Amino acid sequence: MALRGNLIVGQSGGPTAVINASLAGVIEEAKKHSEVGDLYGAVGGVEGMLREEMVDLRAEGDGVTSLLSRTPSAALGSCRKKLVESEYERLLAVLKAHNVRYLCYIGGNDSADTCHRIGRLAAEAGWEMRVVGIPKTVDNDLAYTDHCPGYGSVARFNAMAVRDAGLDTAALHTVDRVKIVETMGRNAGWITAATALAREAPGDPPHFIYLPERTFDRERFLSDVKRQVEKGRGCVVAVCEGIRDGEGNVLVSFKHDVGTDSFGHKQLGGVGDYLVELIAEGLGIKGRFDKAGTIQRVFGLAQSEVDVAEAEMVGAAAVQRACEGVTDMMVTLERVNQEPYRCETGLAPLADVANAERPMPDEYIAPGGNDVTPAFLEYARPLIGGPLPAYARLRMSRVAKRVEAQHQQPRSDCD
Amino acid sequence: MALRGNLIVGQSGGPTAVINASLAGVIEEAKKHSEVGDLYGAVGGVEGMLREEMVDLRAEGDGVTSLLSRTPSAALGSCRKKLVESEYERLLAVLKAHNVRYLCYIGGNDSADTCHRIGRLAAEAGWEMRVVGIPKTVDNDLAYTDHCPGYGSVARFNAMAVRDAGLDTAALHTVDRVKIVETMGRNAGWITAATALAREAPGDPPHFIYLPERTFDRERFLSDVKRQVEKGRGCVVAVCEGIRDGEGNVLVSFKHDVGTDSFGHKQLGGVGDYLVELIAEGLGIKGRFDKAGTIQRVFGLAQSEVDVAEAEMVGAAAVQRACEGVTDMMVTLERVNQEPYRCETGLAPLADVANAERPMPDEYIAPGGNDVTPAFLEYARPLIGGPLPAYARLRMSRVAKRVEAQHQQPRSDCD
Repeated sequence: MALRGNLIVGQSGGPTAVINASLAGVIEEAKKHSEVGDLYGAVGGVEGMLREEMVDLRAEGDGVTSLLSRTPSAALGSCRKKLVESEYERLLAVLKAHNVRYLCYIGGNDSADTCHRIGRLAAEAGWEMRVVGIPKTVDNDLAYTDHCPGYGSVARFNAMAVRDAGLDTAALHTVDRVKIVETMGRNAGWITAATALAREAPGDPPHFIYLPERTFDRERFLSDVKRQVEKGRGCVVAVCEGIRDGEGNVLVSFKHDVGTDSFGHKQLGGVGDYLVELIAEGLGIKGRFDKAGTIQRVFGLAQSEVDVAEAEMVGAAAVQRACEGVTDMMVTLERVNQEPYRCETGLAPLADVANAERPMPDEYIAPGGNDVTPAFLEYARPLIGGPLPAYARLRMSRVAKRVEAQHQQPRSDCD
Repeated sequence: MALRGNLIVGQSGGPTAVINASLAGVIEEAKKHSEVGDLYGAVGGVEGMLREEMVDLRAEGDGVTSLLSRTPSAALGSCRKKLVESEYERLLAVLKAHNVRYLCYIGGNDSADTCHRIGRLAAEAGWEMRVVGIPKTVDNDLAYTDHCPGYGSVARFNAMAVRDAGLDTAALHTVDRVKIVETMGRNAGWITAATALAREAPGDPPHFIYLPERTFDRERFLSDVKRQVEKGRGCVVAVCEGIRDGEGNVLVSFKHDVGTDSFGHKQLGGVGDYLVELIAEGLGIKGRFDKAGTIQRVFGLAQSEVDVAEAEMVGAAAVQRACEGVTDMMVTLERVNQEPYRCETGLAPLADVANAERPMPDEYIAPGGNDVTPAFLEYARPLIGGPLPAYARLRMSRVAKRVEAQHQQPRSDCD
């Protein structure tokens, strides 16, 4: 017999361009199931549940979900909250008071942990409730899923940004010879790797990609940059915020230290500035860094169509599976076909997903450690939802020179 | 009688999202004038002219210009080159050897200076040549023109970026309470000011806008941020790279110092990191900074349709005017109607434009010095080419609480 009761949905962890598409998927699917009564949104994830701050999602206009899927960030509010034991009783009391029988939680590794704890808590208390996780993280570092909703869009943004920043650098390479593009990704290089999708022809930027899966070697880096700069046309480097040197130190230039969340994650970011200084000091070459920061993960205009559709799909699947009796699981994406690309949903135990990290595998990292492999490109290309907008490439047919070099010009690598 | 001869076009200064649209405008218009023979592109602006590095733009495919208008950065290559006297003779020799009678130069303040020098040089040598400048700068700080092509697109990008970063901050404001978005703009606040176009309702981000036209006061800033953070929902600050304190110091956190170009402009950027540190030290509050850097000025996806059309228009107008006999002038934009918005082209002497800067006027800066006025919004809104994409706003209808506050929850501004 169907479990009758109310459903609560929460959003957790860092916002993405499509976490609201998953919320839209939950809402639309829940409306199709008569056993689901009220439809609650937790304000600020599990923090909102603890404070009993919930909104009535059935009170939203009927047309809101299609626009919601196009709206970046987390419309219900998010949190980075690790549940502590002293809060368990309160949480359960709130869920029971509102007859919550279905809980869908959209988040990453840490959210899977939270989700699993809530499920275990309810089971121990004899409160029948189905808890299903919905994957989300721009970092793409969840295990047991082909990829994570949110990744395709941040990958698309960064591929575009590096293509554009590369054109910028090429145009003005006599002034700013090096461009460092710093991406998010924490301890996983997936986002940084995706900048390789900017390339359309051999030699196109990014010229180097530095991933946290490989130890960063300052001398090697300076040698890479020097070699590329000497070719002319400038050097574009994509680097992950989380790269570490041989001693395990992250490379950051800033001094403040107030950024550690309740899961113990330290705030990263600052490597771009650090590398510009390293190049200035080590090579005497001027560079610039671009650090789109949180803009990259929520830039609505760069949404991947595939990402939006899959985010909706995993949201809907969570409700379907929960209504079928599934609990303590996270919805996953399984690639069932590469050409044409197609994913279906699967399931993985929340406990397995919780707190696990999936770094980039060796087969996706070039032997030199400063680039990706064709296998990675094959993996990532379908996720960004179609090719980047077409740009013109001039033929640049040279006009024959007519003037002798009457005056010695200062040597320049401009070409 | 029409002046018969060849035309050369160059791109100069920092790339923009639409400087190629002006190039496309030049190419298309030049093809309509029978007195214009060969059509040369200078590779890397005046540096390319000095090195006699030119490409044949008539050899490009016929369809290239429409795609070129959609392609950011400077397709011919750019430079930041101040002509010195010892180069005059060589430059003139190159122009004469290729029978250049028309010179169109797309650039900003410094480029107008270069353009004016070339024109004077040719006139003094008795070489009949018409020199017309085409305005371009994301900084929007050229005098004698309503605004500069390139500005509408960087404004659109930053309005979107701040709207999205604002949603991101609101969602996770219990973790990252402050978001600093650092924009370009050098000594003029136009780009930073445009982030105000992100607002759709009262209280929307950005909450404060700090412009280089006003002295930056650290205490006042900390007090602004503290007040906003206490309201809950986080604090989003847009700040220009070029702000200075009461002693005239720019606020940068980086130590390297290799970034001064031949016009004496020092590289800016770094204020975002600086302010995050200031907030950490002064208020003990965690913040983040986003610095899109050069990505903001060339992000193809954020092109303003108005900006593209006007960039093409000024490019075409330069050729038209030159063919009519105009020389030593820059094409300008004149706003002839506000509703519906419409601009026409005008002319201003290159010597007047050269090296002038147009900061934001007082009437566009709010009396408090940390925001813009409605008059600025009226000025800037048409330039970004239509409203930003629509986003959903949930009604967030609260569910009545049923559980007493059994356990005292830690006080939080999460709402």
